[in-house]
Amino acid sequence: MSLTLSSASLPIFRTGLANLDHCLAKAEANAAARKFDPNVLVGVRLAPDMLPFAAQIRIAGDAAKLAVARMAGIEAPKFEDNESTFAELRERIAKTQAWLETISPAQLDGREDVDITFPVGRDKTRTMKGEAYLKHWALPNFFFHVTTAYALLRHNGVDLGKSDYLLGAQAGN
Amino acid sequence: MSLTLSSASLPIFRTGLANLDHCLAKAEANAAARKFDPNVLVGVRLAPDMLPFAAQIRIAGDAAKLAVARMAGIEAPKFEDNESTFAELRERIAKTQAWLETISPAQLDGREDVDITFPVGRDKTRTMKGEAYLKHWALPNFFFHVTTAYALLRHNGVDLGKSDYLLGAQAGN
Repeated sequence: MSLTLSSASLPIFRTGLANLDHCLAKAEANAAARKFDPNVLVGVRLAPDMLPFAAQIRIAGDAAKLAVARMAGIEAPKFEDNESTFAELRERIAKTQAWLETISPAQLDGREDVDITFPVGRDKTRTMKGEAYLKHWALPNFFFHVTTAYALLRHNGVDLGKSDYLLGAQAGN
Repeated sequence: MSLTLSSASLPIFRTGLANLDHCLAKAEANAAARKFDPNVLVGVRLAPDMLPFAAQIRIAGDAAKLAVARMAGIEAPKFEDNESTFAELRERIAKTQAWLETISPAQLDGREDVDITFPVGRDKTRTMKGEAYLKHWALPNFFFHVTTAYALLRHNGVDLGKSDYLLGAQAGN
């Protein structure tokens, strides 16, 4: 038995998005307990020149969605980047999860050596083979934004632990 | 061609640690330019009940080291957790990188279905198959600590961008 491009991507993105959604659910409950509007967290940043929480959630989902689309050589659905509430951000995650469910392993497997060209910054592109793209770009990029979202919630006092990030709803309370 | 337990772990950890070390080098240069001692960053935290920067670096390296050791069924070297300077933290990363170089793919491949039991928290363990452990524990855990270290540096004004995290020294300036 060995791993494949699909088995090394789809389950990781599915798990990561489910765990991210769990962290958002805990943040909503924490805000209710602390009696503040959770939506004030949508705009928080770790530094003035870093992207806010909402963008971290959008990009985490897009990192998964675009990685799979590029590896499969298909177009991914575009979302509007207009979420301003936790409910809308969680709906965005759910839409991404639903789209990922439409992808079959056969759309990815065997494409380890296919060239993938993708935008980097505003006016550059980069080309990597499918396997290298997954390992050295798509996965680290996905976890970067999931972890930054987690860090923003922790920085703002939400009662999360690493087990929430790793285990999601299985982490218990 | 398909991925293997070694090809889906060793290069990812090598790249991630090299990029992490690059971020520390940039932080040292940034501290020199801003005329403060970089070692004040060793103790910074994103929340009072989160681990400090030094621990994020130690655990990032240990996440890679222990994941490989557990997947290979061998003992990893123990380090002392006593670093208090950037030089010592970078030496810790280098020691971890050097140990990873001693591991051959044959020590990992074929062990996708071997049970791995590992500590979770203080008094619990968890058991997962090698492949699931890599995908759903070891990789997310590794990137969690690398990204949290990055977030701590950014939060403290170090001039990093995501390309430093993704590309390390290749990111340019």
